Amino acid sequence: MKTHEHWFKSHLREISLQECYELLDGQEVGRVGFTDEAGPVVLPVNYTLDGAAVLIVTSLSSSLARHLPGKLVAFEVDDVDPYTESGWSVLVRGSAELVHHSEMPTSDQRPRPWVEGPRPLVIRISPHEVTGRWVLPA
Amino acid sequence: MKTHEHWFKSHLREISLQECYELLDGQEVGRVGFTDEAGPVVLPVNYTLDGAAVLIVTSLSSSLARHLPGKLVAFEVDDVDPYTESGWSVLVRGSAELVHHSEMPTSDQRPRPWVEGPRPLVIRISPHEVTGRWVLPA
Repeated sequence: MKTHEHWFKSHLREISLQECYELLDGQEVGRVGFTDEAGPVVLPVNYTLDGAAVLIVTSLSSSLARHLPGKLVAFEVDDVDPYTESGWSVLVRGSAELVHHSEMPTSDQRPRPWVEGPRPLVIRISPHEVTGRWVLPA
Repeated sequence: MKTHEHWFKSHLREISLQECYELLDGQEVGRVGFTDEAGPVVLPVNYTLDGAAVLIVTSLSSSLARHLPGKLVAFEVDDVDPYTESGWSVLVRGSAELVHHSEMPTSDQRPRPWVEGPRPLVIRISPHEVTGRWVLPA
């Protein structure tokens, strides 16, 4: 690869923890990564923040309900611009657990899914690690 | 939940295999889901299609280079519009393998990463299953 091919390439910058949460706070859709019987899965979900944790809601019969509680999961949010070939991504890695009725967040605090249908289960992803990076335009 | 709360909600439609590939063909960034020593990971990557397979490139020292070859992986692409609360997502589940030098795709066929730095390794994700869904505006 010739040197001039790099001259106008984007470059990376790590995102601080505080800035990761500011970015997470500004979006409505993220992607949860988990494992089912057939390997890794990545699915988009609506989410909210509950302090440092990520809340998602799901139906009783969903794959998320079967495979997230008690497991290690990933949660990714990004925003990219193909025109400037830049953007950012934040990755939350942590443990998922079903939120019990006694500590259920209010409806204002729960994610509001875009898609119709009841989603009575609330799953909390408690972070072990939160990292992010900017892909800065050249 | 009251009925009227559903009236203006989006609804889902499954995406055909052909349409999944048309959508995949129109984007440059997807997210690869895999597992490392600490559980699931989801990372954004530039990609291209090679027939039904997904190609990504990476550096010799990357987490992708260490954890993808020979493994089951997920690859997700989506495009969502928060204003109409609609969008689509496509999920490719399959096996990742390192592409050997003898069958290396031409530079036109390989993904062109936005971020600077050499990425000599090409990883092919051969699909076992490709699914997608539209979240249609209300």
